[in-house]
Amino acid sequence: MTSLKIEPLTRSAFASFGDVIEMADAQHYPINEGFTERFHDLARIDTGTEGGETIVSLFRSQPRVFPLAITFVERHPLGSQAFYPLQNRDWLIVVAEAGEPPSARTLRAFRATGRQGINYARNAWHFPLLVLDRDSDFLVVDRKGPGNNLEEVTLPGAVILTI
Amino acid sequence: MTSLKIEPLTRSAFASFGDVIEMADAQHYPINEGFTERFHDLARIDTGTEGGETIVSLFRSQPRVFPLAITFVERHPLGSQAFYPLQNRDWLIVVAEAGEPPSARTLRAFRATGRQGINYARNAWHFPLLVLDRDSDFLVVDRKGPGNNLEEVTLPGAVILTI
Repeated sequence: MTSLKIEPLTRSAFASFGDVIEMADAQHYPINEGFTERFHDLARIDTGTEGGETIVSLFRSQPRVFPLAITFVERHPLGSQAFYPLQNRDWLIVVAEAGEPPSARTLRAFRATGRQGINYARNAWHFPLLVLDRDSDFLVVDRKGPGNNLEEVTLPGAVILTI
Repeated sequence: MTSLKIEPLTRSAFASFGDVIEMADAQHYPINEGFTERFHDLARIDTGTEGGETIVSLFRSQPRVFPLAITFVERHPLGSQAFYPLQNRDWLIVVAEAGEPPSARTLRAFRATGRQGINYARNAWHFPLLVLDRDSDFLVVDRKGPGNNLEEVTLPGAVILTI
């Protein structure tokens, strides 16, 4: 068994897996006669493959028990998938680059704040939503459409995530 | 001057202006081995017109002073625009159906809870974000791309919004 180190979520650390949706260091400008500041274009929504369309959903996720054995990962070959937390609570992300199925060596874990969302790039391997201590809601932007948009693989050896 | 009555936001009342993004009465089902409930497909994202793409942004909006004179509305002829509040605070929506520019007679006002988002249908007339008492953040899903996606018209007579 391998333990996974949990890193803070930053745009640069996450760049090969997708986008970080946060105000910090984003391009922004005033709109609505100055009443609103727009932090612009924070995620590349990539859902059009094979006749897909973009949908918005809400997820309510239950906390996991830690230490948690990560035994599998999934990916969406036909579309990106964005998550934004709605209750300002930290959450965890386990991810690996698109390509060959990951191993303990290539998996990465990140701790996001409750003011950081992410957008998995199409085909990025990831573990499902990881909520820490209470039922938590997320706004999700992903794909609806024809074709099989879910692949799952078992990891060659379990990886332990400890908080 | 006309005063606008503020109605509670419901899917049926908002149907001719776009979608309400909320868990109540939504189709939902378990995913992630039962750890997550997915409230599915709550908004029709319609951004592909004239080569547009879908983007995710964050808006930070300042409260207005009420009573507020609504003197103009805007619309986006090339794409839908979705807003979801991030701090669980009530907010207001002023909207009118796509078509001829609205008047005091055709404008509607809604009070949304902090757990209700909306998605303006393409061309639905609306006033910009209306936040009630503190700086408030929203996740926004709208369109990036070529063409002029903003039209604004002055109302024939101001409409007063009182909370």
